[in-house]
Amino acid sequence: MSLTVVGSIAYDAVTTPFGERERMLGGAATHFALAASFFDEVRVIGPVGEDFDAESWEILGTRGIATDDVERVAGGKTFFWKGEYSTNLNSRETHITDLNVFEHFEPKLSDAARACDVLFLANIQPDLQRGVREQCASARFVAMDSMDLWITIARPSLIETIRSVDCLILNDEELELLTEMPNFVSAAREVLTWGPSAVIAKQGKYGAALFTRDGYFALPAFPLEDVIDPTGAGDTFAGGFVGYIAAHPEHPIDHDLLVRAMVYGTALASFNVEAFGTERVAELSPEEITGRVGELQRMTTFAHEPITLRS
Amino acid sequence: MSLTVVGSIAYDAVTTPFGERERMLGGAATHFALAASFFDEVRVIGPVGEDFDAESWEILGTRGIATDDVERVAGGKTFFWKGEYSTNLNSRETHITDLNVFEHFEPKLSDAARACDVLFLANIQPDLQRGVREQCASARFVAMDSMDLWITIARPSLIETIRSVDCLILNDEELELLTEMPNFVSAAREVLTWGPSAVIAKQGKYGAALFTRDGYFALPAFPLEDVIDPTGAGDTFAGGFVGYIAAHPEHPIDHDLLVRAMVYGTALASFNVEAFGTERVAELSPEEITGRVGELQRMTTFAHEPITLRS
Repeated sequence: MSLTVVGSIAYDAVTTPFGERERMLGGAATHFALAASFFDEVRVIGPVGEDFDAESWEILGTRGIATDDVERVAGGKTFFWKGEYSTNLNSRETHITDLNVFEHFEPKLSDAARACDVLFLANIQPDLQRGVREQCASARFVAMDSMDLWITIARPSLIETIRSVDCLILNDEELELLTEMPNFVSAAREVLTWGPSAVIAKQGKYGAALFTRDGYFALPAFPLEDVIDPTGAGDTFAGGFVGYIAAHPEHPIDHDLLVRAMVYGTALASFNVEAFGTERVAELSPEEITGRVGELQRMTTFAHEPITLRS
Repeated sequence: MSLTVVGSIAYDAVTTPFGERERMLGGAATHFALAASFFDEVRVIGPVGEDFDAESWEILGTRGIATDDVERVAGGKTFFWKGEYSTNLNSRETHITDLNVFEHFEPKLSDAARACDVLFLANIQPDLQRGVREQCASARFVAMDSMDLWITIARPSLIETIRSVDCLILNDEELELLTEMPNFVSAAREVLTWGPSAVIAKQGKYGAALFTRDGYFALPAFPLEDVIDPTGAGDTFAGGFVGYIAAHPEHPIDHDLLVRAMVYGTALASFNVEAFGTERVAELSPEEITGRVGELQRMTTFAHEPITLRS
């Protein structure tokens, strides 16, 4: 089976309290693909410029990621983002956003990309997401991300796109903004009435929560003393989550499967933030991932022993 | 066995997006005691004024809470707080803080209070907390809360008090402020080197995390669509948590016991926010509590099924 992702491929300049990188491979599709490639064959759709170098092609090809749908725009420059994180990493300031080849990006899908079993629409303009979604008509699971910008300036299109997918993965505050609900619980349940059968509220360093029509599951983030660079954590989570589903083509996409997918997404995201950009996930081993999943289980499991309460 | 709590007893005026109360019973010791009273005999130490009415005495006496150490100050008025929450309840503005009888409060402990098995020092000036802690020399478990005010204006005294207790329960951002660490994981582990054998990072609507020398446990909050009034949630959590420990006098206070105590604290806190002030917890049944503990377990449990990852 195969997994297609459409989204940004970028060069990032990032400063955190723990160091900086002048120019490193980044972008939502990149982070997603690296994480998802542990689970299934991944095909990336997104534009790069003539400046996209051999080292970047090599990283983007990790574990057999198919890059032949990556569009190299003649005379163009790769999307560039420069940002700086606050001391506690709770906020970040964008210094530069050069859209470059991303400004006029129109996703072109090969037959192989269109024939995907599972599709992830990373954060791009919602009309473009919907166009890709419609081309991948046979996908058995479609998930998407978005951001506050599109909620604000392209809300009707975004909602139409959300109606067409199986799963929305969004930051909890963006869910509140999108639905105008006062908390992420009511916000996520509202989105379930629009069409998607699953909604994930990402909560940054606190973890993530899954809402389906059959239930609720929440998983705290893996506790890390040294978070080096949070860039791409959400896309890496999505890569682990969607990748896990892609790896189980025979399994119905029910609450139980989505729960287990959440755990792999959480594990992958925790590695991503341990180093700058793709540095940690590109070097990761399967054993490290399964080890961390086991640790997450130990850190969240409790016995429910009967107790007589006073009345 | 018995559980003593020292802290504020108050009248609160609270406005949230879902309603308001002009004057209702509140205060850290009140919320703590109501929650803890499901688990053990609770004794409250704190001052009230002559305006403290019969209905308040009755609520404070729920499930046999001992109120004979509550000091009724002649000519005094009960501590009064008036505040208003933002639309999404993420922040609140204090309109009035009348310390009244709390301004010159000096805790006076009866022999029964001093002989407690378990002690909770709710958020009061750290010198006062330490004085109470020293009087309860035979307590086998002492936990405490605090707030940003004391971190800022009474830091050396606060740290000395923290060194003298078994467990610090604090908001995650206050832990970072206290230790000057960039995240609550490193902050909590720093506090473990000061003396306490357990640290709890409260995370509001996201849940709470427990750090001991033997491990880590995190539990998401119970998902609620309708949060009516968050006032007292942290103290209610502490009441469930400390109460559970008090109810297990024969059990060593190890990681496993603290984990299970966290679950009861989380369950109690979730009820507290479903109504204004003490309204929900005062009417709560033991069956509702154990039911919610079971729900929390279902919402956080996952199977760790083996998967072959690509390498």
